[in-house]
Amino acid sequence: MATADVAAVIEAAGSYLPALMKRLEERLAQLAIGHGAVLARHASETIAAGGKRLRPLLVFVAAGAPTEANEAGVLRAAVAVELVHSATLVHDDVLDRAPLRRGRPTVMATAGREMATATGDLLFSRAFAELAANGRPEEIKVLSQASSALARGELLQRGDAWSSTVTIERYLHRCELKTATLFQAACELGALEGGESPAGLAAFGRRIGLAFQLLDDVLDVSGPVARTGKDRGTDLLDGTVTLPLILARERSPDIAALDMRTITTPQAAEQLCDQIEATGVLGEARMRALKVVAEAKAGLPVLPHRQRRALELIADGVVERYA
Amino acid sequence: MATADVAAVIEAAGSYLPALMKRLEERLAQLAIGHGAVLARHASETIAAGGKRLRPLLVFVAAGAPTEANEAGVLRAAVAVELVHSATLVHDDVLDRAPLRRGRPTVMATAGREMATATGDLLFSRAFAELAANGRPEEIKVLSQASSALARGELLQRGDAWSSTVTIERYLHRCELKTATLFQAACELGALEGGESPAGLAAFGRRIGLAFQLLDDVLDVSGPVARTGKDRGTDLLDGTVTLPLILARERSPDIAALDMRTITTPQAAEQLCDQIEATGVLGEARMRALKVVAEAKAGLPVLPHRQRRALELIADGVVERYA
Repeated sequence: MATADVAAVIEAAGSYLPALMKRLEERLAQLAIGHGAVLARHASETIAAGGKRLRPLLVFVAAGAPTEANEAGVLRAAVAVELVHSATLVHDDVLDRAPLRRGRPTVMATAGREMATATGDLLFSRAFAELAANGRPEEIKVLSQASSALARGELLQRGDAWSSTVTIERYLHRCELKTATLFQAACELGALEGGESPAGLAAFGRRIGLAFQLLDDVLDVSGPVARTGKDRGTDLLDGTVTLPLILARERSPDIAALDMRTITTPQAAEQLCDQIEATGVLGEARMRALKVVAEAKAGLPVLPHRQRRALELIADGVVERYA
Repeated sequence: MATADVAAVIEAAGSYLPALMKRLEERLAQLAIGHGAVLARHASETIAAGGKRLRPLLVFVAAGAPTEANEAGVLRAAVAVELVHSATLVHDDVLDRAPLRRGRPTVMATAGREMATATGDLLFSRAFAELAANGRPEEIKVLSQASSALARGELLQRGDAWSSTVTIERYLHRCELKTATLFQAACELGALEGGESPAGLAAFGRRIGLAFQLLDDVLDVSGPVARTGKDRGTDLLDGTVTLPLILARERSPDIAALDMRTITTPQAAEQLCDQIEATGVLGEARMRALKVVAEAKAGLPVLPHRQRRALELIADGVVERYA
């Protein structure tokens, strides 16, 4: 989400939100430095320096305006969700940036990998420690199921890498596991802390998580680099089969016949991005995401007006990333 | 522990133990196949096929004979502890076996690393999911603190790799983090489920965990290979500075002057093992471990006779590994 979108969400939700977002940053920074110099060095960039904090935002808005009784709990839930997300990023970094894929490792890459694996484990553990302080086993269940799903999604993605036979269903299932379940968990945890039924917001979270991933995969093909901050076609170079490629394979015999393993340079990846784009499938993938966002909004349960409006704006913000 | 030692523990503790050990195996096997084909392929060997199950044994014995009310909870605690241990093994495997360290990766090693990272994450998540079903946040806290410590220990070990200045205190701190806290957690979880104060058994667990690691590090130098199932000096090849090396550096100027990075072949490692052994430090390291085991036993709280006896036998079993 863009900063403007976040500001709109804050305006809709209420003045409680900036205070919570600030405390979130403080707590994350504390965690980054609170577990030894080594973690500080390796984790602080990931957990303290960045990110859209979209998942914590969902926790906060799903919980509604905090009371004195639940404010600490809401904050811990948000921290826990962001830590699981950070852990995943750290481990993904290990895997995706591994210069192994291109042939040969540097010493720096080797040191980074080892540290990153342990750092990710530490962030996972801290997430559960943080949430355990809420004293609610149902919350641990929600988070552990989401983090299991993330790992299963990652396994599925690695298992399907370079495959020429990934179906749309399988791709969507992977998106659910890799992305949607943590968005869902963020909504459920917020709802639990806010005293709402978690079921009501679960579907909303799952759907906007799915839309988020669908659009992310479109952005990987479409760019522009200036907006995404990464080269076009990194998924293609990783062997990750996403919806644009699956759809393009259906439309273009040339693309269908292509062995992904032959795409080994950024130039080749960008060229394939152009080919995919030329088939017109990006619009189709985008429409699918917009449809899911619309369903997410339509399926929202009865909620106080401000809370509903804030959730709708978050949903729109997921789409705005693309526009 | 040898099979005979486990049999002695079972005899001391009571007939409830074999039934629990059997259910543990069943549940672990279930978990290995219950989360998709990919996990089954990658995790079943680690979590279903092997290990001494020393940590679950500690949970069971610390809990005492189960009641109808706590049997499921005790079992879940044991499963959770073993899953965290398995997750660590999977991630350690990624790091320690990484053919990177020797120069260049194989394709198989690359595929294995990626899968193993996600598999370890999944096992971590399942551990917390399993324990969450007990509905006791204090248990989650115990496990998440232990698993944080494991990761911190791993970070410390990687950070200290190849160092010529690791002190005994720093080494012992690393052992506490890497090994002792999970033994401690096993005892605490068992005590919590058994209705005892976890504090009473925590020190026991921590101490035998420390002794376990101390002796493990002696075994790495002493062998014999036939008993340990791995080459002598693997720690030296990994750059891991353990007590025997620290002590040997104090006694031998030659060893003190040696740059560990020059030890790059199994032959060189074995030769250094011989040199370390010749300084007589293995006896000193072993004595330190035995002293810790004696303290563990002496510090046991007042317990029913059978339970106390079983814990003493587990402590002895840790030592017997060496004898």
